[in-house]
Amino acid sequence: MQHCDTLIAPRWCVPVAPTNVVLIDHGVVVNDGRITDILPLADARLRYQPSVFIERPDHLLIPGFVNSHTHAAMTLMRGLADDLPLESWLRAGIWPVEKRWVGAEMVRDGTELAIAEMISGGTTCFSDQYFFPEIVAETAVDLHMRALVGTPVIEFPSAWAANVAEYMGKANDLVHDPYADHPLVSTCFAPHSCSALSDESFVDLRVLADQLDVRIQIHLHETVAELALALDKTGKRPIERLHALGLVNSSLLAVHAVHMNDAEIGIFAESDVNVVHCPRSNLKLASGIAPIARYREAGINVAIGTDGAASNNSLDMLSEMRMTALLAKAVASDAAALSAGDALRMATLGGAVALGLGHETGSIEAGKWADLTCVDLNRLNSQPVYDPVSQLVYTARADQVTDVWIAGKHQLDKGHLTQIDTTSLLARSNEWRDRFASSISRV
Amino acid sequence: MQHCDTLIAPRWCVPVAPTNVVLIDHGVVVNDGRITDILPLADARLRYQPSVFIERPDHLLIPGFVNSHTHAAMTLMRGLADDLPLESWLRAGIWPVEKRWVGAEMVRDGTELAIAEMISGGTTCFSDQYFFPEIVAETAVDLHMRALVGTPVIEFPSAWAANVAEYMGKANDLVHDPYADHPLVSTCFAPHSCSALSDESFVDLRVLADQLDVRIQIHLHETVAELALALDKTGKRPIERLHALGLVNSSLLAVHAVHMNDAEIGIFAESDVNVVHCPRSNLKLASGIAPIARYREAGINVAIGTDGAASNNSLDMLSEMRMTALLAKAVASDAAALSAGDALRMATLGGAVALGLGHETGSIEAGKWADLTCVDLNRLNSQPVYDPVSQLVYTARADQVTDVWIAGKHQLDKGHLTQIDTTSLLARSNEWRDRFASSISRV
Repeated sequence: MQHCDTLIAPRWCVPVAPTNVVLIDHGVVVNDGRITDILPLADARLRYQPSVFIERPDHLLIPGFVNSHTHAAMTLMRGLADDLPLESWLRAGIWPVEKRWVGAEMVRDGTELAIAEMISGGTTCFSDQYFFPEIVAETAVDLHMRALVGTPVIEFPSAWAANVAEYMGKANDLVHDPYADHPLVSTCFAPHSCSALSDESFVDLRVLADQLDVRIQIHLHETVAELALALDKTGKRPIERLHALGLVNSSLLAVHAVHMNDAEIGIFAESDVNVVHCPRSNLKLASGIAPIARYREAGINVAIGTDGAASNNSLDMLSEMRMTALLAKAVASDAAALSAGDALRMATLGGAVALGLGHETGSIEAGKWADLTCVDLNRLNSQPVYDPVSQLVYTARADQVTDVWIAGKHQLDKGHLTQIDTTSLLARSNEWRDRFASSISRV
Repeated sequence: MQHCDTLIAPRWCVPVAPTNVVLIDHGVVVNDGRITDILPLADARLRYQPSVFIERPDHLLIPGFVNSHTHAAMTLMRGLADDLPLESWLRAGIWPVEKRWVGAEMVRDGTELAIAEMISGGTTCFSDQYFFPEIVAETAVDLHMRALVGTPVIEFPSAWAANVAEYMGKANDLVHDPYADHPLVSTCFAPHSCSALSDESFVDLRVLADQLDVRIQIHLHETVAELALALDKTGKRPIERLHALGLVNSSLLAVHAVHMNDAEIGIFAESDVNVVHCPRSNLKLASGIAPIARYREAGINVAIGTDGAASNNSLDMLSEMRMTALLAKAVASDAAALSAGDALRMATLGGAVALGLGHETGSIEAGKWADLTCVDLNRLNSQPVYDPVSQLVYTARADQVTDVWIAGKHQLDKGHLTQIDTTSLLARSNEWRDRFASSISRV
């Protein structure tokens, strides 16, 4: 008999890699934070002596979701300004509040609220883009959450930095220390969008990103207005401009990519660009619907993100995955355009690959971190079960997520967050709401 | 002090009629199954002596949802055949199972599973369309659920009837007795779609419906293929044909209405036709996206339905309402095209009006049945609250529904179904799954 930290025994296990596999009555063995074995449960009981044995007889075990784009701290602004187009939403709702209130404490509390919601819903890794990224990173480490932290790079001043040189300097610092080789947190550069930087700054950023070997995540081709403005100002569509500046490559995380022509799809496919699809945000801000089945056909890796809760208004990857599958079918006029299994892959391994973490997380394979999510299918709304992957994608709600492990740590145990004091967290969230609401009424 | 059966004291109450009103700290008074008063809680405590006093300090009270189109019994086929176009889904998955298994017991168990899921998610009334409608009606009465039961009228034989005369005869019987003036159940005619009946049968049905003063619900303009087939067979688009036959009027429940041209939208508006929007089913079967904001602008009453769980795959009106708001924006390219409040109205009063029950349910008004739903907003994913209607529509999940009353009866009490033995129900559901699965593999 061999010792192991944890043995998890779900009814079904869908490892995502290899694809289209449903393991029944298998055990997943976890040691030192990593998955070390996956084998029939009967064999596992003979071979391993676990410190903790977790039986989940009505449950499906999957890789934890990778929320590939969010603005975690903005969870405090959930529902602050709704039913407005992107520009008005920013000008009337978000920017006045941000101008007055963004700071280290606000980012810490907002990020904690986001992480609490994400873990509760089965997300084990997120890619963020917000001010005070060092606080986002600290909070992720404190709460034992996996994250790719994007450091903003823009040309206008904020509470975090005064000018592009300071943004880039601070971003550079964060890559080095203490996150150069951290088990949970890595960093990347996050220029807000093409209009946020001059050509010179984009080139400087590219050189820096190449030297440091980090990714660049950017909001790209989100709205028709963005394309028109870019054409007007630069004579080029944003992808065309970034391509000319040498930024279109496998390190690029293209967030949104709602509107792309055939040539741009071709360029993305050739250059191994990663697309982050944020379907609910794109609907809510009336930006449009990305043709995800076409991207996939072209061979582009697609990840899924919730975007910030201020424009979604939730960080629920189960909903986002379902929306991805449903919209792809309607847009392609083909009910077979994207299967439940395809959508699950995008929400897990697709995200991990996009974030540069494909070798570390995103699937249930020996050697990867034990980033795992367990979903109870024995609920009225998911019964009866013909196919657990279909039930997961088309019926399961976040409250059916019973257990979450991040790097082997049991972060959600039968629906209870083990690391977060939700009473204190909600009290602080309500204090921020009162402060923000006072700014809004003064606008 | 005046006696009353129940006094409900939520933090917020959104009565839907009048529109755009949020009542804070009000009491809703229920007597003999009906709402009798809505007043500030402090006044209510002075004026009424309730048998039961229900405090819900973090909750929003709304009218119960009206699921305006479903096939309840098909909940047993949830996820039986996915990711297939409408025709293949019917031919390869649904029809072989129905041919072998549809009967009174299957309809009873399936309808019970559907009602359990619907009540758990805040739905207090549904409009159904399936074989053995007398069993659907009986089950609704047994479980104290409000329903408009559609009786099928088609020209091919089924386990329920052999020919169109028998369908129409049985449908006629059900209108009279015992549901002519029942407090919970009413009936209507449900010809499956335009291709299901000849011109003569449609005219016979119209005459009968006029005599009996009942509605006709029909799948209409759901797919492009349906329109092409109709043009080919009859030389007319289905709405044009029904219009010529005298069926386009305020008694018509046009289910789906995904594809309508300007003339058809005009005819529907003039004729006070009710549209039932089933957005998730339309996406999943790749039928398309109905331009709901245009229908609303034209003055058409829009209701929301989940369609059957076999093509959705859930009966979750909160999700469907959210989907309605989100899709309407994207299709209209206008984030203000449909507000959270507009979507809530469609999911409640819009449905009640469509079903001919606008005077009985769909809003929190004195005199109407106490069909009420209480939603807990004190959850991580719905916090903080700036606007309770926004949180309801854009963030709330079915598990946040804590209480449901139907005609004053407390059907869901702090999340527990009071009338339904879910253990027995799920056991029976799994037996049906095993039977159905054996038929599928034999196809």
